[in-house]
Amino acid sequence: MKDPQKVVVIGGGAAGMASAASARRVNKDAKITVIEASKYVSYGSCGIPYYLGNLVDDVSKLVTYTPEQFKKERNVEVLTNSYVTKIKVNSKTIEYISEKGEEKEIEFDSLILATGAKPFIPKMEGLNLRGVYTVRFLEGAAKLREDLASSKKVTIIGAGYIGLELAENFKKLDKEVTILELLPRPMPNVDVEMANIIEQELRKNGVKLELNKKVVGFEGKNRVERVVTEDSKYETDIVVVTVGVRPNVTLAKQIGVELGKSGAIKTNSRMETSIKGIFAAGDNAEAHHIVLNAPAYIPLAQTANKMGYVAGANAAGGSEEFPGIVGSAITKVFDLEIGKTGVSEEEAKRFGIEVRSVFIKSKSRAGYYPEGKDVWIKLILEKSSNIIIGGQIVGYEGVWGRIAALTFAITNKLTPKQVLFSDLPYAPPFSPVWDPLIVASRVALR
Amino acid sequence: MKDPQKVVVIGGGAAGMASAASARRVNKDAKITVIEASKYVSYGSCGIPYYLGNLVDDVSKLVTYTPEQFKKERNVEVLTNSYVTKIKVNSKTIEYISEKGEEKEIEFDSLILATGAKPFIPKMEGLNLRGVYTVRFLEGAAKLREDLASSKKVTIIGAGYIGLELAENFKKLDKEVTILELLPRPMPNVDVEMANIIEQELRKNGVKLELNKKVVGFEGKNRVERVVTEDSKYETDIVVVTVGVRPNVTLAKQIGVELGKSGAIKTNSRMETSIKGIFAAGDNAEAHHIVLNAPAYIPLAQTANKMGYVAGANAAGGSEEFPGIVGSAITKVFDLEIGKTGVSEEEAKRFGIEVRSVFIKSKSRAGYYPEGKDVWIKLILEKSSNIIIGGQIVGYEGVWGRIAALTFAITNKLTPKQVLFSDLPYAPPFSPVWDPLIVASRVALR
Repeated sequence: MKDPQKVVVIGGGAAGMASAASARRVNKDAKITVIEASKYVSYGSCGIPYYLGNLVDDVSKLVTYTPEQFKKERNVEVLTNSYVTKIKVNSKTIEYISEKGEEKEIEFDSLILATGAKPFIPKMEGLNLRGVYTVRFLEGAAKLREDLASSKKVTIIGAGYIGLELAENFKKLDKEVTILELLPRPMPNVDVEMANIIEQELRKNGVKLELNKKVVGFEGKNRVERVVTEDSKYETDIVVVTVGVRPNVTLAKQIGVELGKSGAIKTNSRMETSIKGIFAAGDNAEAHHIVLNAPAYIPLAQTANKMGYVAGANAAGGSEEFPGIVGSAITKVFDLEIGKTGVSEEEAKRFGIEVRSVFIKSKSRAGYYPEGKDVWIKLILEKSSNIIIGGQIVGYEGVWGRIAALTFAITNKLTPKQVLFSDLPYAPPFSPVWDPLIVASRVALR
Repeated sequence: MKDPQKVVVIGGGAAGMASAASARRVNKDAKITVIEASKYVSYGSCGIPYYLGNLVDDVSKLVTYTPEQFKKERNVEVLTNSYVTKIKVNSKTIEYISEKGEEKEIEFDSLILATGAKPFIPKMEGLNLRGVYTVRFLEGAAKLREDLASSKKVTIIGAGYIGLELAENFKKLDKEVTILELLPRPMPNVDVEMANIIEQELRKNGVKLELNKKVVGFEGKNRVERVVTEDSKYETDIVVVTVGVRPNVTLAKQIGVELGKSGAIKTNSRMETSIKGIFAAGDNAEAHHIVLNAPAYIPLAQTANKMGYVAGANAAGGSEEFPGIVGSAITKVFDLEIGKTGVSEEEAKRFGIEVRSVFIKSKSRAGYYPEGKDVWIKLILEKSSNIIIGGQIVGYEGVWGRIAALTFAITNKLTPKQVLFSDLPYAPPFSPVWDPLIVASRVALR
């Protein structure tokens, strides 16, 4: 079989550009084209909260590679400000509006859908008022930063990862920050023990955290002045809505690509969709969840990159498989680091897995070594197999590494005894001689 | 079979006290006695460099539990300042000199040898001069700290882990620090790429590092004044000899316990020696090396604790197995963190394993996030199996976590592709979206 000679990627975010790079790696000759609706490609939207907090001076810094670099270094054609209107599967042709506003067509042998996700916005009155934002794309971020400069009161709707990151950054700008959260606690994807510690960290740092608040709308004259919940109103200058994202599957639906239960695109381990020769990668696609042994929709940047790596290689005639994810994620809010891998106790229950769990508090360094920090670990174990299927860590130091280690433990289906005996490195500045991970594993023995 | 009712532990360091605690955990009724030659038990000798550098104010802070706590909380009898003179295997009796100088006897059903290690001291002239030290035991450390207060020039012999930690701490005390190393580079247990970076860090921080220097002796009137090498002399006020340790196996030899090739005590996975009912744990014993699939002598605190956990449980009638080690270790010298797991390229070659390796430089955080630090990774792969058998990381941030993750990868015999696809947590403050570990694994694909 001849290798595909025309590879087209729709979407120039992390997954799209990783696809293009990977396609080029396995196929020196193919014509590779990326069509991107905005003017940026290869950008880290994870960096937006830090850009808003002025830790990153210019929005261009969030861009890893420019279209020009992709052209020069990888011979990949990037069409920015270009908008795909139709995919014609039978004739393998894509219709798009070019940067200059012209209707154009491009042919493909294989196609990668890397259309990403869009912010989920619940039905609320007054959404169109000025001063109401989402944070997902670089253009909007630049506008929001400008607006922040002359505002004092900022209201964040949603206390998930991004809501927390925004709260920290807005506080650093000396804003009055309110978070309105629908649920009775912040960070719903970790369990309540962890959420309680996170709540304390937010309050300690002067964030007004309002729980059990359903936002019904916004009021104001042209510009937002108040957020209205079911039972109260909050004066504000700016609102950021960050209550999650939905996969952007408009084009996929148009051509009848099969979607999973999550609403994101279903693929096989080669990242190929239900239509042969059409692949999907990134925040528009499901991934195989290794713990659940089922597809899951957990849109994260690193997963997007790896999906792109696999989709791009296969689209260009190579052969790669994506083994899947275990749901590892990390963030920090003020000084508190928050990490998770595998499933939470609540998630496990939702999936009908009988679990037990342990929760411990320990230190990040040897007791006698200065400046050791508090670390809390929760491990979730499948009762039937005694395998660790989830870990959550919050603490003031060393969370990334312990979540990284647990990621391997969970992926390789280890028991607490195996983690207890793992040969973790030890020196007083880095951990107690019984590392918190070992302590948690010892408590989890049965 | 009745559980052992009299458990005796010789040696009250990490392994000995972990043994005693573990024995108590599995056996509520046994009489458990620890005989320790010094006045301290349960101390972290890994903390001595930081105690010397005044990061730890009092030597007692290095003690995790006192004999009184062991008595009260665990009902373990601890005899300090007590010296074992003879083990009578047939009559299961131990002769020792008590704290008061009396000859005493104690009977055992099972015995744990946790006699630790002693500093290796090469043959050198003038070793008995005042001002010449080793660092292994708390008593000596207290004396050395006193002596440091009135000294300016300090010479460290040996550029291994402890030599480096001492150099950092002595520099913080504003001493003139010279390290004399026999080999052409510091840290012989990592490969030369890493050693070069460590060498730079030492020099940048004003340590005088003299390589290829064989010390033949010391000169001085009562007190050391000069270190004499084969080709030069170094003025000094204090000398610390830290060129490694040897297992303390005097008693083991006396009773004919089988030793391994390394000279340390050979055990099975239950930590039982060649004599039934006599166990060994800690720096006097070999451990099973998972990568080499052979016994190895790598005396480290965490291994000692785990060996004690296993030996103590088995000695008291329980049933535990020690799966072994992969040689994970970490330290820091000034701002540079230095970690290793598995085998180095040189070690692999010494053991006749055909390997290939990759060496990369990356960053600890997303490119746009402030204060990202340099990180260097070397991976060593077995050619025949393509499995990762070693990893070395040096860098200015995040080394512990990446070595911890690699520890699991190596223990579970993963390939670069498996590490490339591992679901590491990602957020801009903690890693680039392609983590250095992932970058190294990608380069290591073949």
